Amino acid sequence: MTRRLARVLERTMVPIHKEEDNERQRFFDLLGKSPEQAARVLAEAHSADAAAWLVDVDVEDAWRVFSILEAEVQADILEDAEDELTADLVSQMSSPDLRDVVVVLPSDEAADLLVEADYHVVEDVLARMDDEAAEGLRDLIAYDPESAGGIMATETITVDPGQRLGDVVKEIKKRGDDAEEDLGIFVVDLEKRPVGYLSDRDLLTHNIHETVSAVMVDPFVVSAEEDQEEAARIIDRYGLQSLAVVDGEGSLVGVISAEDASEIRTEEADEDIARMVGTGTGHQTRLPVLTRVRQRMPLMGLTVLGGLVSAKLLALFTGTSEGGASETMVTADILRYLPLIIGLAGNVGIQSSTILIRGYATGEIEEQRQWRAIGGEMGVGLVVGLLCGLTVLLTTSWTETGVFLSSFGVAVGTATALSVAWAAMLGCLVPVGCSHLKLDPAIVAGPFLISFSDVTGSLIYIVIARAILL
Amino acid sequence: MTRRLARVLERTMVPIHKEEDNERQRFFDLLGKSPEQAARVLAEAHSADAAAWLVDVDVEDAWRVFSILEAEVQADILEDAEDELTADLVSQMSSPDLRDVVVVLPSDEAADLLVEADYHVVEDVLARMDDEAAEGLRDLIAYDPESAGGIMATETITVDPGQRLGDVVKEIKKRGDDAEEDLGIFVVDLEKRPVGYLSDRDLLTHNIHETVSAVMVDPFVVSAEEDQEEAARIIDRYGLQSLAVVDGEGSLVGVISAEDASEIRTEEADEDIARMVGTGTGHQTRLPVLTRVRQRMPLMGLTVLGGLVSAKLLALFTGTSEGGASETMVTADILRYLPLIIGLAGNVGIQSSTILIRGYATGEIEEQRQWRAIGGEMGVGLVVGLLCGLTVLLTTSWTETGVFLSSFGVAVGTATALSVAWAAMLGCLVPVGCSHLKLDPAIVAGPFLISFSDVTGSLIYIVIARAILL
Repeated sequence: MTRRLARVLERTMVPIHKEEDNERQRFFDLLGKSPEQAARVLAEAHSADAAAWLVDVDVEDAWRVFSILEAEVQADILEDAEDELTADLVSQMSSPDLRDVVVVLPSDEAADLLVEADYHVVEDVLARMDDEAAEGLRDLIAYDPESAGGIMATETITVDPGQRLGDVVKEIKKRGDDAEEDLGIFVVDLEKRPVGYLSDRDLLTHNIHETVSAVMVDPFVVSAEEDQEEAARIIDRYGLQSLAVVDGEGSLVGVISAEDASEIRTEEADEDIARMVGTGTGHQTRLPVLTRVRQRMPLMGLTVLGGLVSAKLLALFTGTSEGGASETMVTADILRYLPLIIGLAGNVGIQSSTILIRGYATGEIEEQRQWRAIGGEMGVGLVVGLLCGLTVLLTTSWTETGVFLSSFGVAVGTATALSVAWAAMLGCLVPVGCSHLKLDPAIVAGPFLISFSDVTGSLIYIVIARAILL
Repeated sequence: MTRRLARVLERTMVPIHKEEDNERQRFFDLLGKSPEQAARVLAEAHSADAAAWLVDVDVEDAWRVFSILEAEVQADILEDAEDELTADLVSQMSSPDLRDVVVVLPSDEAADLLVEADYHVVEDVLARMDDEAAEGLRDLIAYDPESAGGIMATETITVDPGQRLGDVVKEIKKRGDDAEEDLGIFVVDLEKRPVGYLSDRDLLTHNIHETVSAVMVDPFVVSAEEDQEEAARIIDRYGLQSLAVVDGEGSLVGVISAEDASEIRTEEADEDIARMVGTGTGHQTRLPVLTRVRQRMPLMGLTVLGGLVSAKLLALFTGTSEGGASETMVTADILRYLPLIIGLAGNVGIQSSTILIRGYATGEIEEQRQWRAIGGEMGVGLVVGLLCGLTVLLTTSWTETGVFLSSFGVAVGTATALSVAWAAMLGCLVPVGCSHLKLDPAIVAGPFLISFSDVTGSLIYIVIARAILL
């Protein structure tokens, strides 16, 4: 996830996708002048590119351009867009417009859209569709979104084992673009239980007079209630194009594609990383600074608590907080807060560097907003540092000296705030710096950053705390 | 990567893939008694399952069973096997046997096998093949294994824009199983430059009298020199089934599939995680304890160095190492080594928990060897703790008291060793424990583990160091 940083930065200087960059520039130039012309550029671009550009536009501008587009173009863009953009756009669509988009999308994508819309809008959209399609979407929305049923598509072509391949080909021709591509064909028995699988390539290479049962292979099957990760694991392990999803009776209800599996893995990896470093999920660098600070509070609170407990316990075992106020004694008292400083600074540094490195790797941070992203992350570090410093100031004043505000508390608190802010700055600048020096950010920004931030953070802390106290 | 732990552990108790588990058991039961019968079970299993079972068998047993199998079964298993198993098996194969395997594999998989074999064996294998195929493999092996050229397959079906779809279908029928599945068909001009792409589904849904140019879409193209990660990124962004790889003149030389892209991402994620936590790559829990200790030495060395520098600098700023030897003074001296302890314990804990959590998530650690894996990892933590403790003992004796061995050094060194061993134990037991309590290991084993290990490690350190010194 992290090694791409150097390469991504390099690329932003000599763009490989020159053509996409030019189109993108045209789109942004036209945006303020003529929404109609900007919409035309958007419609001509690949939907994945269009979806990426819209993320970097204000919500109002994005909606102004998007609302001009035809339903089919809207559907393509929404299919490729990230959840946040989808939610923004869908929440502003009228029921008739949303209906036009929903009917051209594959069922799984349509269900994902409807989940983002208001309850009444959903009912209105479903009422405007034919009964069978509406019923199918209702079923899909009812599944746990993290289950196999929650990600499957219901557009499957099913055939009998006894049919000839030529008839299967005719069936596919008749369905045309109705069925999702690249999923192959499932063979089912009379109870609709999957008994075989045919790839499109099988249909092309075999004689049309052969029967399905002579050519088909065993299908891979998962229950609709199963966790989506288990479905992705099976697709990976066996290198499948598609996986059959069955209900409680074992009847085929849908299909999960290899592309779905790939999306599941990316989504879960992002979630896990966010959890391990204690930040929120989603595009951190695009969120307001205060939202990000709030998301990190639980972990920072835990770290501060651990550090304060540690300092008190160290006092119990060392006895340094009793007795006089010699310089050595005061220094020992200050040193008892080192675990707090190191824990806080380490966490803040890892959070900042992880967010920046992931941001570059996933393309969330593009060249034109690189410094804005770094500035925002430093702002978060500064606010977190101030909040932690204030907490430590008040707590330490009370626990160490029994008053509301003591010089010891002020010294330790101020030093904490500065150490944390310093660590956040390191966490932001080290990834950028080592990518310019062509070093691997994964090695440098991980272990090296933590060691360096431990040493320098400790020094900043002790020097400042002593300067205030002595 | 980590949330699956709870589910994986759950699954090992009530296996979902009952059938695979039974077959697996049969294979292991037969292994000691009759290699021939075990080989038959292997041949009947899915090659991905067979490859997974062989990883858990001694190298000699694996080879005994594998060598009995027919070349086509061997090829299937090697295609699904991890690099280490592939290397083990290929290194023992004779040139004629390896040749029989290589000719039935797709070119990219064949090249991956040959990379693992001895130079002379490779020459011998290529001499036994027809010239064209041998030349193609030579070209493939020459590419950087991390480049687009290094992972592409060369079995592509190319057609002219002017051909009719019916002729394309005939071409595919003629080639039969020769071309890799699921890659679609690339349309090239007279210089072999890709100008279009057709999916298998396009061929099934359109009239056979239509021309290729009327149906094809724009192809996505990458240079053979490009980094494999960039290729994977393009496949992801545009949801491609396959990506055309071109040489310096822009002529088509190969194809990268969506499945290749998925393997690249897994491989790179593993590498990045290993780098960030400072362990080796590959299946850590299967490696000898001392190998793993050696792999972690660079990071541990860096951490010890940082901690020692930190302790000395703190002394400069606090002046605690000068003056008398009062209890408070000694305590302050001990406290200056807290950054060292916390840094070391933190790193060791993260390494152990990451390896165990990844091991469960990827299926590397299976139920039957769960406690062996945990024991091994604790062993690594113990050895790392002892080595770090010894280093600290000798260094501190010298830097703090100027002698080869001092009681201060012994106290700080012993306390370091015990704190690190404790952190390793926490890193092993917390992931297992919280999965039994159905807590998310990604949240608990990350931030919580580090805070807890900071507090308890600091206490263990101070109590032991003081007990020895005072």
